[in-house]
Amino acid sequence: MNQIGTTVAAISTPPGKGGVALIRVSGAEAVNIVSRCVTLRSGKPLSALPARYAAYGDVIFEGAPIDDVLVTVFYAPHSYTGEDTVEICCHGGILLTKTVLSALFAAGAEQAGPGEFTRRALLSGRLSLTEAEAIGCLLEAGSTAQIRLSASAARTQLAKELSALHDGLLSLMSSLYAKIDYPDEDLADLTDEEIITSLLAAESKIQGLQATYRTGRAINEGIPTVLCGSPNVGKSALYNRLAGEDLAIVTDYAGTTRDVLSTSVPLGSVMLRLSDTAGLRETSDPVEQIGVSRSRSRMADGELLLAVFDASRPLSSGDNALLRELAECPQTVVVLLNKADLPRAIDEAAFAAFAHVIPLSAKTGDGIDKLTALIEKLFTDETLRVGEEAIVSSARQYAALTRAGEHLRISLDAFRGGMPADAAASDLELALGALADLDGRAVNEEIIADIFKRFCVGK
Amino acid sequence: MNQIGTTVAAISTPPGKGGVALIRVSGAEAVNIVSRCVTLRSGKPLSALPARYAAYGDVIFEGAPIDDVLVTVFYAPHSYTGEDTVEICCHGGILLTKTVLSALFAAGAEQAGPGEFTRRALLSGRLSLTEAEAIGCLLEAGSTAQIRLSASAARTQLAKELSALHDGLLSLMSSLYAKIDYPDEDLADLTDEEIITSLLAAESKIQGLQATYRTGRAINEGIPTVLCGSPNVGKSALYNRLAGEDLAIVTDYAGTTRDVLSTSVPLGSVMLRLSDTAGLRETSDPVEQIGVSRSRSRMADGELLLAVFDASRPLSSGDNALLRELAECPQTVVVLLNKADLPRAIDEAAFAAFAHVIPLSAKTGDGIDKLTALIEKLFTDETLRVGEEAIVSSARQYAALTRAGEHLRISLDAFRGGMPADAAASDLELALGALADLDGRAVNEEIIADIFKRFCVGK
Repeated sequence: MNQIGTTVAAISTPPGKGGVALIRVSGAEAVNIVSRCVTLRSGKPLSALPARYAAYGDVIFEGAPIDDVLVTVFYAPHSYTGEDTVEICCHGGILLTKTVLSALFAAGAEQAGPGEFTRRALLSGRLSLTEAEAIGCLLEAGSTAQIRLSASAARTQLAKELSALHDGLLSLMSSLYAKIDYPDEDLADLTDEEIITSLLAAESKIQGLQATYRTGRAINEGIPTVLCGSPNVGKSALYNRLAGEDLAIVTDYAGTTRDVLSTSVPLGSVMLRLSDTAGLRETSDPVEQIGVSRSRSRMADGELLLAVFDASRPLSSGDNALLRELAECPQTVVVLLNKADLPRAIDEAAFAAFAHVIPLSAKTGDGIDKLTALIEKLFTDETLRVGEEAIVSSARQYAALTRAGEHLRISLDAFRGGMPADAAASDLELALGALADLDGRAVNEEIIADIFKRFCVGK
Repeated sequence: MNQIGTTVAAISTPPGKGGVALIRVSGAEAVNIVSRCVTLRSGKPLSALPARYAAYGDVIFEGAPIDDVLVTVFYAPHSYTGEDTVEICCHGGILLTKTVLSALFAAGAEQAGPGEFTRRALLSGRLSLTEAEAIGCLLEAGSTAQIRLSASAARTQLAKELSALHDGLLSLMSSLYAKIDYPDEDLADLTDEEIITSLLAAESKIQGLQATYRTGRAINEGIPTVLCGSPNVGKSALYNRLAGEDLAIVTDYAGTTRDVLSTSVPLGSVMLRLSDTAGLRETSDPVEQIGVSRSRSRMADGELLLAVFDASRPLSSGDNALLRELAECPQTVVVLLNKADLPRAIDEAAFAAFAHVIPLSAKTGDGIDKLTALIEKLFTDETLRVGEEAIVSSARQYAALTRAGEHLRISLDAFRGGMPADAAASDLELALGALADLDGRAVNEEIIADIFKRFCVGK
């Protein structure tokens, strides 16, 4: 990462060969640097170009023109980063694009780090931290719901509501301090009753936002889901069916707290973080005890257990063992009666204890829509208008909100309990700090580094 | 490929995740189609936007905003394609970019085929065929010289010279036809002497352009080069040294007329199409005859033979056999005395018959600069200013020029030999046809298909 004073450049489009590529230059020296290596066809200086107007020019490198490009200048603060920015749209060859970038480096630009343009937008106040996070999600989005959740209106709405919450608490705190500093004078603009009402309103607002995380998480981070069942019940076929035909947006990643591979699978508006339970197959193995305990630990990691049975044959002893285990699971269990396309031979009475039983066919796809609708109903608040309302969508945001809520509650109790006003003020300050962390006003380098390390260079 | 009347859209930046992506929409309906799925933040209609001005807006898909984008309109004929064009710069997520494209398809755009934007530029007269080819080369360029060869000034210069040549011959032909149609009147604006002078000037111009192909080919298509030598002389080390550290721009492709893998290696300003001769190792094998003949056939395919010897040891019998073979080769042979970093033990007198002997060290890199300079000197015309002058750079261009030159010569001979003017005119017409093929005025679908099949979608 470069210091804010420097001017940085990077290829903002994906690496590789394409028709065109876009190179972004941002910083106080952007126009000067580009002027040194781009000659406009109009013969005018770049600084004379109207803002946001695409002009035709030539990039000069080592004395020779190497590409004809379109150059657009965005002056501070009306740019993505909030700094003077020049966007160069050049031809998309791999070496050519690198060479244009080299020309910019030779003219004085420094290489931008991963996510540096967005980080600069954050630091210049053009974006809040939750908005920067949403842009990161937009780039990674694997479902339409995820795109809507992070789209402009939604991310702006969350930033606005957090900002209003923060500003409201800040003005409450100034009232509290007025009471502390001048206890005998009537300087506070709010009565005690009004302060309590405002604190309660803020607490309820925080709780409202916290409640949206259930939906935001299901859409964005995904529901930890375990697919379990006896061998040959059609688990693999179901896995493929859920992963869908568009395998390109299925990504594999190693879990951080457990040694199991998960796959993110979009299903309707939610995302499943699907784990297999190869372990279950070992229940008929000589080392049955180890297998069962391993399956149990995997199942314990899931919040949603999709238990698959073969509806075309009677329950096996393995199926019955699984049913007994599932009956004791605290998580949401959905029983899937697979092979619904074949004549049914399973005893349905065995599933009477389960709230959610869905017949389906991994082979034909029948019933998948019912499963999708059920999971959406169970894991999201369907009255929330995704894409329009403020929705909390990351564990970091939720944790900061929770911290803010806890401090607010302590402050409220202190104030209502007749404690000295400075006790209430001190916790209110901590609540404000948590909100400032959340939207990036008081963000520390560690949080920034953690968020931007997942960005690509050029964003 | 779509019909010219349609409006097409494609992602013009490379596929994959990046900060931003650029989607291009071109055709008569471009502004209307984008209007249907993009709402400007200013509230104004897209058609009210000044040309080339980047405006902020939201893409709407299935009723919901999915991304905030920059939209720029280029009105015909002042656009890359020569048609009305809208460029949409959106966030670079893989699914997001596809979804923005889906919104455009839903609004009436059709998917652009590979190279379709450039093809439209050609058909609308914005680019000549040689310019379109140069843009293709720019995207594939693996050396700075290749970039310069195909950069704007150079490709425009070639197009201009070909166009002037074509127009000059066309006016000569009208003089010839005047002579044919009205032989007794004095309608022709040129005397016979003047026609001969002009035909000679055109012929000399064609010859001049033909001569540039030696350089254009060495830079752009590459010099067929065979690396040969006994085992353990350091051939592999030299191969790696020539391929350089930046292996990313080394590409493997199967030769079309032989079953050998070649690697394109940029060396200074030229490109080597380097083949190995694993076959040579078989000269000490029981099936020696087969091995030798295989090596010979590989060596026969090369225009440049880099013969490697280990200078730190005396010549082996294999080395001596190779020297005898090389002495009979009609191609350019450069003898490389490798391992120059070790004490020399080889008998240099053995190489007296060879014009080019370079001591070098694949290990340290010493001598590679001398080899580079020699190859540049042998295979390019160093007085040609690459990037400024018109240079013929593809076999297709050279073949069409040759055809034009042959017909011109026949026409000239006929005219000077006192044949009837229509004999001269008929061959002049064939020469004009070859030039028209060359710059795309009379290009046929087969040639277009062959050129654009190598383009990526979005260019």
